[in-house]
Amino acid sequence: MSFEFELIKKDNSTKARIGKIKTAHGEINTPVFMPVGTKAAVKTITSEELEEIGTEIILNNAYHLFLRPGTEIIKESGGLHKFTNWKRPILTDSGGYQVFSLGETLKVTDDGVWFKSIIDGSSHFLAPEDVIRIEEDLGADIIMVFDECVSYSASYEEAGKAVERTTNWALRCKNSHKSDNQSLFGIIQGGFFEDLRVKSANEIVNLDFSGYGIGGLSVGEPKEVMYQMLKCTIPLIPENKPRYLMGLGDPVGIVEEVAEGVDMFDSALPTRIARNGTVFAGKGRLNIRNSEHADNFVPLDSSCKCYTCSNYTRAYLRHLYMSSEILGLRLLTIHNLYFIIKLIEKLRLSILEGRLESFVAEFKLKYIT
Amino acid sequence: MSFEFELIKKDNSTKARIGKIKTAHGEINTPVFMPVGTKAAVKTITSEELEEIGTEIILNNAYHLFLRPGTEIIKESGGLHKFTNWKRPILTDSGGYQVFSLGETLKVTDDGVWFKSIIDGSSHFLAPEDVIRIEEDLGADIIMVFDECVSYSASYEEAGKAVERTTNWALRCKNSHKSDNQSLFGIIQGGFFEDLRVKSANEIVNLDFSGYGIGGLSVGEPKEVMYQMLKCTIPLIPENKPRYLMGLGDPVGIVEEVAEGVDMFDSALPTRIARNGTVFAGKGRLNIRNSEHADNFVPLDSSCKCYTCSNYTRAYLRHLYMSSEILGLRLLTIHNLYFIIKLIEKLRLSILEGRLESFVAEFKLKYIT
Repeated sequence: MSFEFELIKKDNSTKARIGKIKTAHGEINTPVFMPVGTKAAVKTITSEELEEIGTEIILNNAYHLFLRPGTEIIKESGGLHKFTNWKRPILTDSGGYQVFSLGETLKVTDDGVWFKSIIDGSSHFLAPEDVIRIEEDLGADIIMVFDECVSYSASYEEAGKAVERTTNWALRCKNSHKSDNQSLFGIIQGGFFEDLRVKSANEIVNLDFSGYGIGGLSVGEPKEVMYQMLKCTIPLIPENKPRYLMGLGDPVGIVEEVAEGVDMFDSALPTRIARNGTVFAGKGRLNIRNSEHADNFVPLDSSCKCYTCSNYTRAYLRHLYMSSEILGLRLLTIHNLYFIIKLIEKLRLSILEGRLESFVAEFKLKYIT
Repeated sequence: MSFEFELIKKDNSTKARIGKIKTAHGEINTPVFMPVGTKAAVKTITSEELEEIGTEIILNNAYHLFLRPGTEIIKESGGLHKFTNWKRPILTDSGGYQVFSLGETLKVTDDGVWFKSIIDGSSHFLAPEDVIRIEEDLGADIIMVFDECVSYSASYEEAGKAVERTTNWALRCKNSHKSDNQSLFGIIQGGFFEDLRVKSANEIVNLDFSGYGIGGLSVGEPKEVMYQMLKCTIPLIPENKPRYLMGLGDPVGIVEEVAEGVDMFDSALPTRIARNGTVFAGKGRLNIRNSEHADNFVPLDSSCKCYTCSNYTRAYLRHLYMSSEILGLRLLTIHNLYFIIKLIEKLRLSILEGRLESFVAEFKLKYIT
């Protein structure tokens, strides 16, 4: 097994830690943020640009790639790394979340899920074993089990049933997982009920995976509710395994959850809001469409060293955005990913230098969501 | 005056020539192809990428930039070079073509044109003097006079009237042009009537500009008709002045017209068809949407050394296109511009080495439009 997680340092005053994950495609320093390339591309930018920003690992989505271009094509091409020309580590999400949140779920049984393709409406059945086969064909370094997600409004009963199924499917995923070059992560569910979160965490941890995703959060619930769920889950994950909070991309949330001991994050938020004209700046979010930027000949963030801030002014970026020029979306995306990745790097350094607590306090004071 | 055109070599067997244009922002080797950045951006790509491809000069459009973001903003930013972060030469088209082809022309008088903005429907009046003032504020290295374009279906009378007005406006543009750092090019019109083309060429050349655009062509007429118009126009332009065929971007057309003595080309075609999935390949055009490319793990053109062909397969590019990933449009755009710019470089080399005639023959044999 080429996967290895090394815990390098634990913070004294918080639950934060820094570590290193080793994969067949190189090392990942944790805490880490994974840009989301759902359809085998981080929207608008190249693999080369991702590297320049300092990206250590990206996320692709098995569900989307199964539907298009189809697993076979990616397998034939030599796997996701070859297909996308991204040479560093990749994690594939199984698509549990997508099956339940996108398109139409036709029928969920203990066996698996019947669902309609969001692309052409065709019907498909996926069992946990099928998903593992797909993820093995795609060839990412870290692959996720197939889980059942419930919505924020799910009842205790629904959430409880999903926990059972998620555990059962996790076991089946583990049993059908053959590839030596890929490590398999379990996913903890439990809706928004503390005891179900605890139950799921214990059951999934019991199955002994290489790492643990905490799923079904950041789906519209108040921040405090998410924090509460994480607080009762994280301590149940063994210290020597990476903890991956699925779907959180808000800077303040990342800062706070690093302090709670989360090692891995992914979210489409930085890239999605960029395409909506919104960027992270030193003091909070800024929307480039605002007319105040029309004749503002300064960078998005004067202290930022990203490609966009080094070369272009707000006035030009606003002009591109207002003129529907694709270049604008690229440049805003680069800035947002750079911001988040540099933020994670600063968090790592703060932990290393034993000053995370003050970093978190300062960041929260300065940065208004 | 910082503009200078040096004729370096004339071909023996064709009318082709190679030359050098000197501007305040560096030299341009001719024949040259100018990528079109209508709204102060060559669609989907950065100034850095344009440089990597070998771009020597780009075209921006005064009409579009006057409407958005507005001349004032670009002037305040320090001019187009600063605004767009493009450090090499820029040519601005006056927008004559756009005024007459886009949106609604409300009234054309000898004084100028009333037209409606394509952005918000607002009414604007532009006299030739206004256009020169706008182009001076934008700050390109080469600026074009304001001309009246007629459609392919225009009558002899209409085309004749436009020739008169174009000459009159050209004189007014010349008289109102003050900037020392910018050279002004005249534009020859005449619709699709040989005698009107000859009349326009003689009148415009008589006014003595730094170079000459041949306008109103490549607007839907049969290729032979365009060639006929060019054949009677080009010889009337003094040998020591650059000849700029406006709006032609088809590879075969460029090859043929270089042999006829054209020095400068611009066209949105290579970038526009790229966004439609069509690329230039060694043997002609190829559309990436075709299903034959779905599992074709070779570059767009195996002999091409562009960034796209060096890093990505047809299968991946097709997947990006079919998935509406913006990255696909970028990568196809880079390839098409690279193709055209390398083609122009090959043409220059062929002239230098005295073998243009055979290059043209071979290219036309190999490349099917």
